Amino acid sequence: MTPTISMYGASLPAFMRALRNLRHVLELGEAHALARGFEPGVLLQARLAPDMRPLLNQVQMATDTAKNGAARLAGVEAPVFPDEETDFAGLYARLDRAIAYLDTITPAQVDGSEARPVVLRTPRGEHHFEGLGYLTGFALPNLYFHVSIAYAILRHNGVALGKLDYLGRG
Amino acid sequence: MTPTISMYGASLPAFMRALRNLRHVLELGEAHALARGFEPGVLLQARLAPDMRPLLNQVQMATDTAKNGAARLAGVEAPVFPDEETDFAGLYARLDRAIAYLDTITPAQVDGSEARPVVLRTPRGEHHFEGLGYLTGFALPNLYFHVSIAYAILRHNGVALGKLDYLGRG
Repeated sequence: MTPTISMYGASLPAFMRALRNLRHVLELGEAHALARGFEPGVLLQARLAPDMRPLLNQVQMATDTAKNGAARLAGVEAPVFPDEETDFAGLYARLDRAIAYLDTITPAQVDGSEARPVVLRTPRGEHHFEGLGYLTGFALPNLYFHVSIAYAILRHNGVALGKLDYLGRG
Repeated sequence: MTPTISMYGASLPAFMRALRNLRHVLELGEAHALARGFEPGVLLQARLAPDMRPLLNQVQMATDTAKNGAARLAGVEAPVFPDEETDFAGLYARLDRAIAYLDTITPAQVDGSEARPVVLRTPRGEHHFEGLGYLTGFALPNLYFHVSIAYAILRHNGVALGKLDYLGRG
């Protein structure tokens, strides 16, 4: 059997889908606030614990994980997105910009990156991965973490969402 | 370059890692309850919204997603785990049983499943996938969802956890 799974197929479509679903979930959150007559921005400052980041930052971190993850796998420099959004419109624009960037990454750039060295610099130090381990052990779980926490913040605040809003329907 | 990514490599190691990390996160939750002097089982009934499942069910759903996902990709029948756990010890045993089951699935069973038909039966009807779309569009995002929500329930209830407890440290 011809193998049809590739690093691109295991990563970029899922990244884009997760960001599209996150945009959809946010839209439902904003609509909920407007329907209830409260300022939607209140939701963006909501958090699940005092030392967890609020919804606004969860969305920023989800887009960063996707765009930086794609760039690292492709071996290119990711664009920097300044963390300066203050409202839902700004977050939609950030998500759209990230999705448009992901759309510029080609299968040829990402395929064959299984063993490509990836260095992740965090406040806790440098983490060294090979491409496949980076994708399955960091990029995907981290992306889904931030999208899930965004969903959970909205659910916790009364927004009517279901699992299919998170997973996507198509 | 020889392609080294395979359906097995993109799925089973991540499934096992996610369940091991979930066990670790639960252990920290139980230890927190014991240190504070409250019954740990209280945490298992905690939820983030009245119509979201409590922690106990989140762990059951995470194990189901991993074991059923692996079985569907391998084209075998998954073992049924009755939802009868009532305490942390029961959930640890369920996680260990799921990890041991995943460990019996071989690369030869899963590799080449990219286009294998997968039927998912839910209360909302049947969903038809090919193996790769099932893995990237359902199994992985659903598994990470339930592990993230379990983490969030514990964080919301004051358990000191960090992102590396979710992602794993090795």
